[in-house]
Amino acid sequence: MIETINSPSDLKKLKLKDLSNLANEIRQLIIETVSKNGGHLASSLGAVELTLALHYVFNTPKDKIVWDVGHQTYAHKIITGRRDQFKTLRTYGGISGFPKITESEYDTFNVGHASTAISAALGMTTAKDLLNTKEKIIAVIGDGALTSGITFEALNNSGELDKDLIVVLNDNKMSISKSLGAISTYLTKRLTGPTYNTLRKEIEKAIKGFPVLNEPALKLAKKIEESFKFFSPGLLFEEFGFKYFGPVDGENIEDLVTIFENVKNLRGPIFVHILTKKGKGYKYAEENPSKFHGIGPFDISTGQILEKSATQSYSSVFGESVINIMQDNPKVVAISAAMLIGTGLEKAKNIFPDRVFDVGIAEQHAVTFAGGLAISGMKPIVAIYSTFLQRSYDQIIHDIALQKLNVVFAIDRAGIVGDDGETHQGIFDVSYLNLVPNMIITAPKDATELDALLKFAINGNFGPFAIRYPRGESVNFGDEFIDTIEFGKWQVLNASDANDICIIAYGNCIKYAMQALEELKSNGINPHIINARFIKPFDTKMFSDILNTFNNIIIMEENTYIGSLGQTLIYHAYLNSNGKYPKIKHIALPDAFIEQGDSEFLRHKYFLSKDNLIETIYNLLKK
Amino acid sequence: MIETINSPSDLKKLKLKDLSNLANEIRQLIIETVSKNGGHLASSLGAVELTLALHYVFNTPKDKIVWDVGHQTYAHKIITGRRDQFKTLRTYGGISGFPKITESEYDTFNVGHASTAISAALGMTTAKDLLNTKEKIIAVIGDGALTSGITFEALNNSGELDKDLIVVLNDNKMSISKSLGAISTYLTKRLTGPTYNTLRKEIEKAIKGFPVLNEPALKLAKKIEESFKFFSPGLLFEEFGFKYFGPVDGENIEDLVTIFENVKNLRGPIFVHILTKKGKGYKYAEENPSKFHGIGPFDISTGQILEKSATQSYSSVFGESVINIMQDNPKVVAISAAMLIGTGLEKAKNIFPDRVFDVGIAEQHAVTFAGGLAISGMKPIVAIYSTFLQRSYDQIIHDIALQKLNVVFAIDRAGIVGDDGETHQGIFDVSYLNLVPNMIITAPKDATELDALLKFAINGNFGPFAIRYPRGESVNFGDEFIDTIEFGKWQVLNASDANDICIIAYGNCIKYAMQALEELKSNGINPHIINARFIKPFDTKMFSDILNTFNNIIIMEENTYIGSLGQTLIYHAYLNSNGKYPKIKHIALPDAFIEQGDSEFLRHKYFLSKDNLIETIYNLLKK
Repeated sequence: MIETINSPSDLKKLKLKDLSNLANEIRQLIIETVSKNGGHLASSLGAVELTLALHYVFNTPKDKIVWDVGHQTYAHKIITGRRDQFKTLRTYGGISGFPKITESEYDTFNVGHASTAISAALGMTTAKDLLNTKEKIIAVIGDGALTSGITFEALNNSGELDKDLIVVLNDNKMSISKSLGAISTYLTKRLTGPTYNTLRKEIEKAIKGFPVLNEPALKLAKKIEESFKFFSPGLLFEEFGFKYFGPVDGENIEDLVTIFENVKNLRGPIFVHILTKKGKGYKYAEENPSKFHGIGPFDISTGQILEKSATQSYSSVFGESVINIMQDNPKVVAISAAMLIGTGLEKAKNIFPDRVFDVGIAEQHAVTFAGGLAISGMKPIVAIYSTFLQRSYDQIIHDIALQKLNVVFAIDRAGIVGDDGETHQGIFDVSYLNLVPNMIITAPKDATELDALLKFAINGNFGPFAIRYPRGESVNFGDEFIDTIEFGKWQVLNASDANDICIIAYGNCIKYAMQALEELKSNGINPHIINARFIKPFDTKMFSDILNTFNNIIIMEENTYIGSLGQTLIYHAYLNSNGKYPKIKHIALPDAFIEQGDSEFLRHKYFLSKDNLIETIYNLLKK
Repeated sequence: MIETINSPSDLKKLKLKDLSNLANEIRQLIIETVSKNGGHLASSLGAVELTLALHYVFNTPKDKIVWDVGHQTYAHKIITGRRDQFKTLRTYGGISGFPKITESEYDTFNVGHASTAISAALGMTTAKDLLNTKEKIIAVIGDGALTSGITFEALNNSGELDKDLIVVLNDNKMSISKSLGAISTYLTKRLTGPTYNTLRKEIEKAIKGFPVLNEPALKLAKKIEESFKFFSPGLLFEEFGFKYFGPVDGENIEDLVTIFENVKNLRGPIFVHILTKKGKGYKYAEENPSKFHGIGPFDISTGQILEKSATQSYSSVFGESVINIMQDNPKVVAISAAMLIGTGLEKAKNIFPDRVFDVGIAEQHAVTFAGGLAISGMKPIVAIYSTFLQRSYDQIIHDIALQKLNVVFAIDRAGIVGDDGETHQGIFDVSYLNLVPNMIITAPKDATELDALLKFAINGNFGPFAIRYPRGESVNFGDEFIDTIEFGKWQVLNASDANDICIIAYGNCIKYAMQALEELKSNGINPHIINARFIKPFDTKMFSDILNTFNNIIIMEENTYIGSLGQTLIYHAYLNSNGKYPKIKHIALPDAFIEQGDSEFLRHKYFLSKDNLIETIYNLLKK
């Protein structure tokens, strides 16, 4: 049946009861594709019926569905003309793992970061009124969005503007792992506590005992009935000015179609609460939805991940290092924003449940909460992915840096992250942190140095101290490259006996420099190689010496070139030149959003590779 | 009496009834000081009794009061040993207008930006448990904080962590002007709607009519009683896991002391709702609290602002320009984050109530809401102060720039803002926007150019387009300096016939360049002066010509030097030098938070002045 669905209009030709079969076929395609390409499996499996019901009832693409985060949109992609391309999911040039306006007219707003949907949808419905068009606007959010501040800002504003807007809560009790916070508890309590129906029965029973219903009693009965809605899980949303409907069984496509038909033409802000099951329809994902939230290629029959690397990821190195540090120092605490597993902090949480905090998708709060801990003498480590740290930029500046509080920022997924694409690349952090006064920025060259930098940061009182490290497998250069970390000092990894070439790099790029070294040596070239592990402050003394010594300098970094270390160094070189201007080449990312694709492929494409480094050096030496 | 209060321990010696008199004396000192120095009058006047009651009941500084925003803390400063220095409020080297940890041990956390208090306080109370100390932690928030996302993130996390934490809501129904959003409406409705007490009476009346109370009826009565709390204004906070108390009359010091005594030793998250009056005790401020929110020097007897400038502020120029643009183009809308008056948009709101939006202290939502409007074909102008725009950094990158949406960012208070100090200086925006792909950054040299740039931005489809302009009085250089704006092009303001000096500046710095020009000319020096109104993209052609023509280049800008235009230009100069390296001087702000003080004084201190420019040029030419 799936082969006949080339657009939502084909969907509308189906009988309601056929939709369930279609849902199963779609699930199979999703499972097969993700088992090969990796991706966000569990969320997408949970939202198949919801997706079909929405497209069945609403008139897309005229009516606009705004998906929050967007990792649940695989079914949406498959039924909106992208079935055959779906096999290219998350590959270079292929279908994005998230909605993308340039990919399809059915994708209404680019997403990737959580909790933007209600804001964007409120903008769209406001535009609809001003332009006097008639489309429906539907925002689909996950329960994780209810831990995020911007969602509440948008709910608050929606209630005030009173525009036509349908918000669908796809509630699977999981944001990425377990949903967090008081609101999650509240919803669960309301869903399992006394409901309208059970309470109504009790009232009927009680009223039967009254011989006569006098007028005050009747009046009271009406008041009581009004108050029943307060027992529904929707009260919170009613308080924000929404009409609440639900909860609806998200596995029952007929119920879903009915509720959407019912609310479709209502005016004002509408809130529809749907209960779904993350991982639905694939045993292993249902049993372990966190593992199958975002996953690499796996064996469908066993649920086992393929190509499991023997090398530790940086996240895992970080997680173990944190445990050691916490064992040694009772003042150390760790904070994650809905990423305990992703950041490697889950083990630490199990060992130190009172000292590891997962605050939900709430990066702003995470940082200021750390500020409160730090000012009271604790040593917080805030572990947030580079791309999500953008959410707490003002808190970093205003709450941490201004007071020079001792907060360690463990910035995971810094640099190119690969197949999650534009929305998730961590290519701005060096630059946006570089301009913040009092901020220390470092990057380890390998796993051992990540551990060492963490300990160095915790043992000092440096104020805000950022450590950025890449996604994926760690490297280790071995004992001969271990030295004692000194504040603001760089490390010489290879000392040159000539004065022709110096390579300055940090983090991931050290790998390419060291790989290039072997090949260059075999061609009689011996470049000076610097591990610029302190990005801010940089090693002014060593850099001055380099400027005075070498004819050619290559600065290599996995970050946008604007505001980067390279830009800072070149600025410094110009202004303090004393008439000496060695040739400097800067290899960094362009001023652009970097597309999805295999990380190594992308690094190669953007000249962050051993081969490009070697070629650059040959060209420099030729001149 | 005020003379006897040198610390909160002196306060505790007073009788409760004396506190009201003390409150009046404190008010007089606040009014007198602010009438001379300017400051945040209305909020501080409203919070005097609240402040006295808190310090009377709690054991500060051991117990910690975390003030949100902090502009209501004048009474707090006066009674915590800063009475005599209070006359230096907001002056260079004087008492800060906000809590500041370096100023007093009673100031527990630096603030200035709204809505951080609960997060910080939750961090402190978590630290208290881990360190096994016994202090009380009290966060005092305004109702404006309830429009802000980070507050909800913090409430949500507080409910989950279940730590001892007292949140005091100082509810004056005004954030800066009118409070906004559904939550504000909700609180008002709850405060004026049926309450626990009136409902209880009705029930008693009804139950009297029942001849016999059977068991189901008794059970029901209990259930009903439980449900009463749902009629209280505290329900929302109860849903977040707080115990709610209130509302309490914030003008009645005995009630305040009683409630704080009652909740002082309760465990878990406590929410105390206090109703205060903004501007309390000063007639003109009570009548017009928005005007007296943040105000310059005024005449106490008339409430009239002194030294009213004949020159329009940039905000007012912006406001009028927006009205013209909206009259011409029905697709233009404007958005403010609780700053309709501050940004100059109030008039536009009156003329176009459906096209001007104040979303509350919700910068994140403001930007993504604009994204939703833009993708639907509208032309939104988002007017946010430079320092507050930091709050929406991820939304600018992820929701606007990535999709290259046509959103105009009107960045008011860019550069040095003066007496609000460290937390409010707008000295980072050029750098943090510079590194965002697809972002256009401009700065007008004067009022006429602000209007022209706005029209230019609205008429084009450039994607995100930032226009930054300073706080305060605008300038105008006259018709001879008006030209047609071309995308990415700079303007020659003075053409030199020599090749010795070129000054590149933008925004406010143009004023100093033009002032310097007169004096330099009288000394036979005629510098080339460039208005670099396009900061990104900059005018590469003109800059190349400058590099090839002039021996000395001065780049002058009111922004941190890191990641600035100057750094970009010098980088460009080095990498594209072809062996020519003219001498470049970069005058910009240092890598530091800039203290409070008179704006012109601070500019002079940081070398952003006519005099420094002239001296720099003399020095360059001497060599």
